[in-house]
Amino acid sequence: MKIQEVRLTPVAIPDVPLVNTKGVHQAVFLRTIIELVTDVGLIGIGESYGGARALNGMRKAAESLIGLDPFHLNELRRRVEQALPNAGGINAPTMLTQHQVVDAVYSAFEIPLLDLQGKFLERPLCDLLGGAVRDRVGFSGYLFYKFKKPNEYRGADLFGEVMTPNALLDEAKALVDEYGFRSLKLKGGVLEPTLEIETMQLLRDEFPDAPLRIDPMGAWRVPTALTVCDAIGDILEYLEDPVRGMDAMAELASQTHVPLATNLVVVEFEHIVQAYRNGAVQIILSDHHYWRGATGSIRLGEFCRAGGMGISMHSNTHLGISLAAMVHVAAATTNLTYDCDTHYPWTQNDIIKGGKLTIENGSIEVPKGPGLGVEIDADVLAEFHDFYVSQNLRDREDTDEMRRYIPNYERVVPRW
Amino acid sequence: MKIQEVRLTPVAIPDVPLVNTKGVHQAVFLRTIIELVTDVGLIGIGESYGGARALNGMRKAAESLIGLDPFHLNELRRRVEQALPNAGGINAPTMLTQHQVVDAVYSAFEIPLLDLQGKFLERPLCDLLGGAVRDRVGFSGYLFYKFKKPNEYRGADLFGEVMTPNALLDEAKALVDEYGFRSLKLKGGVLEPTLEIETMQLLRDEFPDAPLRIDPMGAWRVPTALTVCDAIGDILEYLEDPVRGMDAMAELASQTHVPLATNLVVVEFEHIVQAYRNGAVQIILSDHHYWRGATGSIRLGEFCRAGGMGISMHSNTHLGISLAAMVHVAAATTNLTYDCDTHYPWTQNDIIKGGKLTIENGSIEVPKGPGLGVEIDADVLAEFHDFYVSQNLRDREDTDEMRRYIPNYERVVPRW
Repeated sequence: MKIQEVRLTPVAIPDVPLVNTKGVHQAVFLRTIIELVTDVGLIGIGESYGGARALNGMRKAAESLIGLDPFHLNELRRRVEQALPNAGGINAPTMLTQHQVVDAVYSAFEIPLLDLQGKFLERPLCDLLGGAVRDRVGFSGYLFYKFKKPNEYRGADLFGEVMTPNALLDEAKALVDEYGFRSLKLKGGVLEPTLEIETMQLLRDEFPDAPLRIDPMGAWRVPTALTVCDAIGDILEYLEDPVRGMDAMAELASQTHVPLATNLVVVEFEHIVQAYRNGAVQIILSDHHYWRGATGSIRLGEFCRAGGMGISMHSNTHLGISLAAMVHVAAATTNLTYDCDTHYPWTQNDIIKGGKLTIENGSIEVPKGPGLGVEIDADVLAEFHDFYVSQNLRDREDTDEMRRYIPNYERVVPRW
Repeated sequence: MKIQEVRLTPVAIPDVPLVNTKGVHQAVFLRTIIELVTDVGLIGIGESYGGARALNGMRKAAESLIGLDPFHLNELRRRVEQALPNAGGINAPTMLTQHQVVDAVYSAFEIPLLDLQGKFLERPLCDLLGGAVRDRVGFSGYLFYKFKKPNEYRGADLFGEVMTPNALLDEAKALVDEYGFRSLKLKGGVLEPTLEIETMQLLRDEFPDAPLRIDPMGAWRVPTALTVCDAIGDILEYLEDPVRGMDAMAELASQTHVPLATNLVVVEFEHIVQAYRNGAVQIILSDHHYWRGATGSIRLGEFCRAGGMGISMHSNTHLGISLAAMVHVAAATTNLTYDCDTHYPWTQNDIIKGGKLTIENGSIEVPKGPGLGVEIDADVLAEFHDFYVSQNLRDREDTDEMRRYIPNYERVVPRW
């Protein structure tokens, strides 16, 4: 079995204006759908970042995949490194963190190779990762402050404007009603810390048993974070990236007992070694889109276990192929005992056959395979690729978009 | 594909009296040959420790393997942990280090499961580990001081008595002539350090380009080790376990630039985290017999890469099934750039079809598979199992054996 053709299809999908500390989601989000066609008729699929730098990295490396044996992941790594010297130029394929392009591109192609392995074997992808240790994977309800969606944007809105603690509570109730989430995560760093504290307290009152998290994406200074820890530390499962940078996280960690999680300061294996030494974090968020794919995410689990850390899972806005891969990885990560993050409820479209995957009782069943267990709907893919072509957007830019709502908006880090 | 039957066959194989700091090899060495029979007619094979504690651990866990899917390595781990609570009682399945029995037993069964996966796929085992990054795996010539083999012991001797620097040099020349080794490792901690220094200098003079290592198995105190570093540090590729215990290694490391390697103080993933923090070692030796199998050994490679450490490979006395597994693991460990250790040239028998594997130009070709790429010769296996039954030996005991040669021998650690 050899790769004969690499198809990269960028798509644009209608989004809703979810707010974070950097800005707000644009009218659409971008993803790249990957299809690796083999000489035996099997096609391996994947989904990754849609921004120009990641897409260009995939395009640069695509040709080198021709002839590759889908079982030879080490050879994939070698070819991607050769196609993208100097870690691919280190650019950030996501807007949030500084990942190596080479890691993102390797990761983007590893999933379709594992999908091919699974299809070849007629087994679910998680069997290539040591097998599922759970039948269903739990997800937390991902709560956002948001604006009302402009009428001229394509697609429906959800919940209108949500910019107060009480409005956020209503949003949470609606999401829990619909999906049965048993844990909740708030994207913070948006309102004044006192209002976000109030929001978390409202959530605790309404959902007394639900594990709660808040992720201000580094918006706070250490003293602010300490104030938050004092106020609501005892109702938090963990606090995600409260302050910016490894040093600030280590400083905060030395002064609080609230477990600190990150997907910003530990994004490569080398960073874990640093974190072992300085104690900056107690939980690392995996993400197969940049942690060297599914196999790298499994290894990350072993790093966390060895270092006495917990492991959870990060999400960017994504479609069902990414979600299926997340579920397979989570199913095979023995020590991934936290509910995973997902933006999926905010996405009203999907390009997989049969429409969106089902979240029930806050969890998703591990697809039975073969491979990822989901397939592309070619017509819908073409539709959202056409939409991508028609849109004048090639990169995510939340800060610019924020000025649509707040004309003089300036990004300040840390803000409080 | 499910496991239907677990066959464990202990064997005894004639050995030669190789000396180390603890004592001397006995008349025979013990191994356990593992066969996992499936419902589809395929049989997965493996080889592990032959001592009573490891063998008992395998026997205790064997029944729990019935019905296991060979792709479900996480489930293997769960079942072995359940069968052997408290890490299996923590005993040492080898005489050298304190491993968790549960890790050794998991490892013993993982290789036959991977062998089955490979046979099912009709692919070499290394393809289940990300694929080979090299066609041949280099091995160092493993040099030992030794006694003359007693006439009443079964099997031929090699080189007679080798207890001086010059005799050791002759042994090295003979091994290099026969196998083409390009690097050499001396099992030290046997003669006075001045004599072992002299031995290494003779080796350097005779083989000016060969990477050289010495492994006194913790026989030295820190000041002695520093004296050795001063004398021959600049001709060593690395110094393996010169002193005993993580603290002593860290103390030595802080005072020398000679790279320190270990298979004694870092034998679990948790130990690596310690070693990251205290800088005790620069190279870790993998060994699929206790590093959670082949997949664990591959993960160890990633731990070493992330921490800026090197990775090499440890050996106990073994047969061809273990050797084939070592070659597959080494082939797929991207950053395993040192020659591996092996006792194989000292073993004059094997239980695999076609006789011993070939070492040529100091390296072994990666078997082309399927699976491990070697098969058991049932008649020879039966012969050496009968020999095991006839021998009154169920555990390795080098110190007792030493008293056959030196009646008043006492083990002293550290000795110098």
